[in-house]
Amino acid sequence: VLAAVSATSDGPPERRFIGVAALGAAGPEDISFCNSERHAAALAATRAGAVVMAPGVGEPPPGCIAIRVRNPSLAFARIAELFHPRPHQPARHPTAVIDPRAQLAPDVAVGPYAVVGAGAEIGPGSSIGAHAVVGPGVVLGARCVLHPHACITNAICGDDVVLHAGARVGQEGFGFVPDERGDYVTMPQLGRVLLGSGVHVGANACVDRGALDDTVLGPGTRIDNLVQVGHNTVTGVGCIMAGQVGLSGSVTLEDRVTLGGQVGVADHIRVGRGARVAAQSGIMVDVPPGAEMLGSPAQPIKAAMRGIATLRRLADAGRKTRQDKS
Amino acid sequence: VLAAVSATSDGPPERRFIGVAALGAAGPEDISFCNSERHAAALAATRAGAVVMAPGVGEPPPGCIAIRVRNPSLAFARIAELFHPRPHQPARHPTAVIDPRAQLAPDVAVGPYAVVGAGAEIGPGSSIGAHAVVGPGVVLGARCVLHPHACITNAICGDDVVLHAGARVGQEGFGFVPDERGDYVTMPQLGRVLLGSGVHVGANACVDRGALDDTVLGPGTRIDNLVQVGHNTVTGVGCIMAGQVGLSGSVTLEDRVTLGGQVGVADHIRVGRGARVAAQSGIMVDVPPGAEMLGSPAQPIKAAMRGIATLRRLADAGRKTRQDKS
Amino acid sequence: VLAAVSATSDGPPERRFIGVAALGAAGPEDISFCNSERHAAALAATRAGAVVMAPGVGEPPPGCIAIRVRNPSLAFARIAELFHPRPHQPARHPTAVIDPRAQLAPDVAVGPYAVVGAGAEIGPGSSIGAHAVVGPGVVLGARCVLHPHACITNAICGDDVVLHAGARVGQEGFGFVPDERGDYVTMPQLGRVLLGSGVHVGANACVDRGALDDTVLGPGTRIDNLVQVGHNTVTGVGCIMAGQVGLSGSVTLEDRVTLGGQVGVADHIRVGRGARVAAQSGIMVDVPPGAEMLGSPAQPIKAAMRGIATLRRLADAGRKTRQDKS
Repeated sequence: VLAAVSATSDGPPERRFIGVAALGAAGPEDISFCNSERHAAALAATRAGAVVMAPGVGEPPPGCIAIRVRNPSLAFARIAELFHPRPHQPARHPTAVIDPRAQLAPDVAVGPYAVVGAGAEIGPGSSIGAHAVVGPGVVLGARCVLHPHACITNAICGDDVVLHAGARVGQEGFGFVPDERGDYVTMPQLGRVLLGSGVHVGANACVDRGALDDTVLGPGTRIDNLVQVGHNTVTGVGCIMAGQVGLSGSVTLEDRVTLGGQVGVADHIRVGRGARVAAQSGIMVDVPPGAEMLGSPAQPIKAAMRGIATLRRLADAGRKTRQDKS
Repeated sequence: VLAAVSATSDGPPERRFIGVAALGAAGPEDISFCNSERHAAALAATRAGAVVMAPGVGEPPPGCIAIRVRNPSLAFARIAELFHPRPHQPARHPTAVIDPRAQLAPDVAVGPYAVVGAGAEIGPGSSIGAHAVVGPGVVLGARCVLHPHACITNAICGDDVVLHAGARVGQEGFGFVPDERGDYVTMPQLGRVLLGSGVHVGANACVDRGALDDTVLGPGTRIDNLVQVGHNTVTGVGCIMAGQVGLSGSVTLEDRVTLGGQVGVADHIRVGRGARVAAQSGIMVDVPPGAEMLGSPAQPIKAAMRGIATLRRLADAGRKTRQDKS
Repeated sequence: VLAAVSATSDGPPERRFIGVAALGAAGPEDISFCNSERHAAALAATRAGAVVMAPGVGEPPPGCIAIRVRNPSLAFARIAELFHPRPHQPARHPTAVIDPRAQLAPDVAVGPYAVVGAGAEIGPGSSIGAHAVVGPGVVLGARCVLHPHACITNAICGDDVVLHAGARVGQEGFGFVPDERGDYVTMPQLGRVLLGSGVHVGANACVDRGALDDTVLGPGTRIDNLVQVGHNTVTGVGCIMAGQVGLSGSVTLEDRVTLGGQVGVADHIRVGRGARVAAQSGIMVDVPPGAEMLGSPAQPIKAAMRGIATLRRLADAGRKTRQDKS
């Protein structure tokens, strides 16, 4: 364990651990984590066998090993990975409906009432939760996890893709044209969704299939709950979208773009590599690489802050003028 | 009935009623409700046996009893409760998959294709809808209702908790740390969700489990559809979150906070007791008790209104100057 | 085919086609679509038998017929309709739970684990996806499509209604009144949802049933993913709501109102015929017919743009003044 995280500790090297747990729930065979002085009381009372310690958060009780590392969060995440390559029970519930033309690796777990369509392919170590739906022809790589009620159609996925509960991937996007009378005729949505390895899609989030091209989420992209990704969106590597972000159609996010909660991005916009957009901002024009944006419509963060400060000053001045007159 | 709502009426005391219904749908054995002059025509035509009347909304037709009370909405809600302690059919559909190690009170109703995991405990009078999933070890108190497709894991609930269709409670939150190469490693999410008695969670809303601590929603807290509650959020008693509110991680709402639709709250923010936040506002700093906030970033409502008025005045002045010059 | 879209083409009239496909996926018996010079390479390489061409996007390869029309998007949408009156397999999966008191047209398709309640009526050509739930008494017209995990209760629908994956229609809205102690008592939600013909509801979107009156969406109204429609909302013909729009209670949208992504509308607001509201705007007061609105709170778009420009000018001026002083 220690080698994996380059840690030093004061404990005997032969101690055995079986898992990770919060300070209050951990037992002598668990490793826990303390990252804040707020947890001082829990730390003092913990029964954990060892604790990964952030600097300056105190001392564990006697008998508990302190694991001190430079990056405690990363160390704890890595230790957790060692213990939990995910609890994997390669069982197929008898109620799962698996089309005989689907190809599942022998150890794929399939929960109660899951449905797997014709021609779907699911890689080794993957797990399909209760009620999850894998549409015809969908490809999932190794170690993918579909949580309960997730639904994926018209999609090709790499390895280690995670869809949380109720995530919807690959449904038709929002496309239609008015006819001569103004009635809407649905545009065919013929593209796919391509999810790179390590993509996570949050609970009840939606990723629409492309209209003609594909919708593509680059490797390692992480999407929080209730996010909307419109058709033909393309993201680079490691993009982050916090809760309730909305991308309309044909948006391009270059590598490692971070969007705060409830951010909206207009259609056909390109956001440059490494740009960061503050929560609730609205992106209406292209954003250069590395920019930090704020506001609706969004501006570079310094300009947006100046605008906020200016308006507050003017409003206060107006109030004082009126008060002086009265 | 009248005693329960401290009402006076002009009807014979021996009348019998069997339920509540809208004016247009009610029959002679139903009690209906009229709270607006907009419904004058429906009131005149109703076949209801009695109508709870707001003041100044006219007279019911002959034979229909007028129930006049000080708080008609509350009275009607109470009467509805009397008739509908909820239609409860304590049947278990043969397709429900209930782990033999789960403990259900004898009268718990379980719908088609519902799944209840090992060690789950469900209290008397509760009802689990079609396709709902109750994860291993989840505890539900008395009279809880899971509507179709709701999903709850890693959670402990009091009595009278309601999850509407597609609500997701207890899934892993949005936590990860970059490693040396910038790739994201998932932080373990080890906490639970604790829902106090009377908590309602709206359709397709999401409440994430805590990372190390628990996510806690205080008794009587009501969450509308499509709301996102991030990990480690703690709310007091009777908080209200309207549709599409988003709370990022580790937010604290004290008792009886009200958040309007689409409000966003940044992480580690505390909102004081009884504060009210207008729709679409963005809370970036702590809010004192009783404050009324507006805007993104939010200000006290008077300051925000001054800012809006000031900007409109300046913009108009600029337009007139340009018009005068031309 | 050509007659249906009033097209002219240079191909032999006896060519046969079997479907539509994207340029890269199409074969000799498919018709494809090219609407942008961005697709020049895909156009040059396509194996499609024919391509509906927007003006100025180049020439198809030899042997591929160019279909030239005035409105290529509409033409392609119509051609797609000709080939895909939707793949309809009128099979009922043996795991579907259909109440014997439900009335389904003989050719209705019902997927695995779908649930249809007592008294429901489903019209010819309709299709109920895997895990979808049709509540007791719900009426669906002809050719309706419920995608997987959609859920509809307390609702009456016209023809050609589409609910995408995880859409929730007809659940109780957000209604309660505080009692004397401040505890919330649920107001009965007794209304229905009426969906006109051609209404589409996006993935994981929510449409609440009315409280006393009905929630009504007019014919042809199109709702994108993750939209919230509160109780008693009424829309006219052909309204459009982009992703994550939120309508609180008792909103009225007249015919052909368009709301951009993440727009919010306060309760009891009326938005006039043909009005257009820009993304992320917040509507707090009634909007006249034909207006174009922007901002939160929303203003007519010209006034809002003036406000944005004015603030930027003042903020810049303030910065220069401070720079000159230093």
